[in-house]
Amino acid sequence: MRVLICNDDGIYAPGLAALVEEVKKIADVTVVAPEFEQSAKGHAITISDPLRAKEYFKDLEFFGWAVSGTPADCVKIAISALMDRRPDLVISGINEGSNTGINIIYSGTVSAATEGRINGIPSFAVSLTSYTYKDFGPSARFAARLAEKYLSIDLPPGIFFNVNVPAMPEEQIKGVKMTRQGRAIYEEIFHRRFDPKGRAYFWMDGERVAEEDDPNIDEQAIRAGYISITPIHYDLTHYPTLEQLGLKIGKLL
Amino acid sequence: MRVLICNDDGIYAPGLAALVEEVKKIADVTVVAPEFEQSAKGHAITISDPLRAKEYFKDLEFFGWAVSGTPADCVKIAISALMDRRPDLVISGINEGSNTGINIIYSGTVSAATEGRINGIPSFAVSLTSYTYKDFGPSARFAARLAEKYLSIDLPPGIFFNVNVPAMPEEQIKGVKMTRQGRAIYEEIFHRRFDPKGRAYFWMDGERVAEEDDPNIDEQAIRAGYISITPIHYDLTHYPTLEQLGLKIGKLL
Repeated sequence: MRVLICNDDGIYAPGLAALVEEVKKIADVTVVAPEFEQSAKGHAITISDPLRAKEYFKDLEFFGWAVSGTPADCVKIAISALMDRRPDLVISGINEGSNTGINIIYSGTVSAATEGRINGIPSFAVSLTSYTYKDFGPSARFAARLAEKYLSIDLPPGIFFNVNVPAMPEEQIKGVKMTRQGRAIYEEIFHRRFDPKGRAYFWMDGERVAEEDDPNIDEQAIRAGYISITPIHYDLTHYPTLEQLGLKIGKLL
Repeated sequence: MRVLICNDDGIYAPGLAALVEEVKKIADVTVVAPEFEQSAKGHAITISDPLRAKEYFKDLEFFGWAVSGTPADCVKIAISALMDRRPDLVISGINEGSNTGINIIYSGTVSAATEGRINGIPSFAVSLTSYTYKDFGPSARFAARLAEKYLSIDLPPGIFFNVNVPAMPEEQIKGVKMTRQGRAIYEEIFHRRFDPKGRAYFWMDGERVAEEDDPNIDEQAIRAGYISITPIHYDLTHYPTLEQLGLKIGKLL
């Protein structure tokens, strides 16, 4: 099995290293990752600038390609220019921090998996739900096990998994739960500061203002100690509304 | 009615100017747009750098805020820091070039509307389906008419419109058609070139390799001379797969 591994934290990220180490035990791995951190870059791609792809060596051994672009760029250039054969599977991660609820659409990690799936390749994204808990071992081992089974799950075209692993020792993880994307609402706060020349600038910040009380959403499953798997897709059409409005639309003009 | 207008082509874009001019006739308009072009930035947001918001004057008159970030940043900072009251409606556009099919997920224009809707505000995105046809008049007039009706359509939470206007004189446009997001497949091509120092770099390019033969998809409606409206959403959960796999997932481990 040929596996392409990408991420959004960049080629130097410990979560990437842990994932590569585990998946190498079961597959032929190619790493193509951003040269610099690309968190929250969503599904951005680079169309107005050229891209560079540098060979990155770790302990004098070729580790992978460091690309001067976004996670989605990495998958595109890997498949179309850097790899001699298409991968059988794309894994994106392990992200430092959860990718749940509305944050899925801002996530570069998820977007790399989306890009793999757009290209017809089975793909999944994996995140560790903490910025401080640094043991990527349980997430990496779960990702490798999922990789072994993933091609047999036979997901329909355009469907792929977004996986979040709770930040706790492996033996405390209760199991795996299929979830839906949460709908918690965040309220942005912009902190206004002034530079030494007295000009204003803003730091974006936010806090969750409304929780959802449903054990089947991603955040709640994680909080309860489960690995959360949400089957996601990228057809943004809202079909019920399309059906409902389809016949009435002449009235809009 | 208070309308927030954003785009991804940047505050100097002619499509933005045309939209503002029309919508000003019917509403109180605030413009918050990226300082520089942000095409294909998807739903990227700026979390590791601060943001600047500069007052931009046109012909000595205040036109709007130029933000050093992405389209989604513009909507966030507009609502949370720059506007004294929440807008009743967010319009993003008029984009130069279509936003249809898979390109919706790369589109900064659509993402600004997404961000408005995430914040609970009725929102829509408008694109003119050409990079060369420069008459934004028909698109701007349609957007203003849609703006007048939009609040009465009563779309469910999380649902909003992605509008594409065909590049042709107004009298040739046949009408409005509700559509779904197309699923045409693109094949990326990376052009490899060498800089003056002999180092390789790549330009991303692509071509559509598979068309869909369905008059109800966005691209086909436009080609047939209709304004295409796709109702879209940002809940990426694929519910049929969730239902199908929900009970079987224990087997994954």
